[in-house]
Amino acid sequence: MNTVDVCISPQLYPVYHKDSSIVVVIDILRATSAMCTAFEHGAAKIIPVAAIEEAAEYKKQGFLVGAERNGIAIEGFDFGNSPFSYMTEKIKGQTIVISTTNGTQAIHAARNAYKLVIGAFTNITALCNWLKLQDRNVLLLCSGWKNKFNLEDTLFAGAAAGILMEDHSLFKSGDGALAASFLYESAQDNPYKYLRNSSHTERLAELGLKKDIKYCFSLDQTAVIPVLEGKYLVPLS
Amino acid sequence: MNTVDVCISPQLYPVYHKDSSIVVVIDILRATSAMCTAFEHGAAKIIPVAAIEEAAEYKKQGFLVGAERNGIAIEGFDFGNSPFSYMTEKIKGQTIVISTTNGTQAIHAARNAYKLVIGAFTNITALCNWLKLQDRNVLLLCSGWKNKFNLEDTLFAGAAAGILMEDHSLFKSGDGALAASFLYESAQDNPYKYLRNSSHTERLAELGLKKDIKYCFSLDQTAVIPVLEGKYLVPLS
Repeated sequence: MNTVDVCISPQLYPVYHKDSSIVVVIDILRATSAMCTAFEHGAAKIIPVAAIEEAAEYKKQGFLVGAERNGIAIEGFDFGNSPFSYMTEKIKGQTIVISTTNGTQAIHAARNAYKLVIGAFTNITALCNWLKLQDRNVLLLCSGWKNKFNLEDTLFAGAAAGILMEDHSLFKSGDGALAASFLYESAQDNPYKYLRNSSHTERLAELGLKKDIKYCFSLDQTAVIPVLEGKYLVPLS
Repeated sequence: MNTVDVCISPQLYPVYHKDSSIVVVIDILRATSAMCTAFEHGAAKIIPVAAIEEAAEYKKQGFLVGAERNGIAIEGFDFGNSPFSYMTEKIKGQTIVISTTNGTQAIHAARNAYKLVIGAFTNITALCNWLKLQDRNVLLLCSGWKNKFNLEDTLFAGAAAGILMEDHSLFKSGDGALAASFLYESAQDNPYKYLRNSSHTERLAELGLKKDIKYCFSLDQTAVIPVLEGKYLVPLS
């Protein structure tokens, strides 16, 4: 039977890597949520880059570029990390570049996975329906915060793991998936109880980004599943 | 204010390390539970070693040695990893050597911490009372399973974090501590619901070790707090 498990930090990815696994990269606040939004609003491709210098290089070449560190958009680029900044006509049909604090680092860590897809609450149902059909091990890879555990990515991982484990014949769960799904189960009636004390939520709320947080926790805004092909993320067809 | 946080794998320890932190090493099934038992039954010192070869070297030198891999005691040594094997007169006043799959690896990872102590459900109240008096950051370091997340160590970390956070003036919690405490809170009425599907519990149950599991989840069997001094664990005086 295939397994579903959760890895809470890009730094632990090598411990969880299996050649045959589909890896779901998760950065709820806000990289992977923003990526789903960008595709929903017509972006053709996204180039995820880890280093700011690389993002600046693309900017010089004329690409539309989003870049953010520690929750703050970097001056001189076209977008920050807010999903709302990608709800614009100007990305339609474009290849855009995104560099973020944690999300693109996780993509970089797992770039050689059998298949790498992007997960967010905003595409959770489409994503899980697709995963159920693949007959593959699934690893839910949380971007975390500078390689530490974070709460929001694990809550999403728990939500997704819970959906995948609903049908007991499909997946056996690792301890990480089990714990994350218990966590989500006890959080789902009142996620704000869980999140109000979390480090990154606090950080974003201080930056005036409560609207972003609310959006990033809203389910099923899109049916798009971004998938990594070479250096590009593209909508799974 | 001091912080309390949880690190779920020895491999992530460098990300969480602070020069000023007290590190609590946790390997509930069964290394740190067994270590507490050994001191409660009169052991003078414990030398934790990571490699089997090193354990064998000590055995040759005449030490009493416990060694275990993957839940099974290794032939030719004096103890395995069962706390019950340390409930014996012969360890009284002795320096014993313990090598285990995960616990001693975690001790090795954090050996240069400001202070390293040993935590288990069996010494939880004494441990937390002492931690509250230290005015230090506390890092609860789970040994995990071969550097992966495991459920039982995180449940203990959540129990301890919950006790430390009871008085809000003492500790600010990291996301890991927050999640672990939520997990323990929702598990405490029925820990077996949580554990019955966990990988290591399953592994030990298959090996006929349900009695060990029950003991390792029993609270406050001892008031001893093992602390690392050089290469030795000794009872904190």
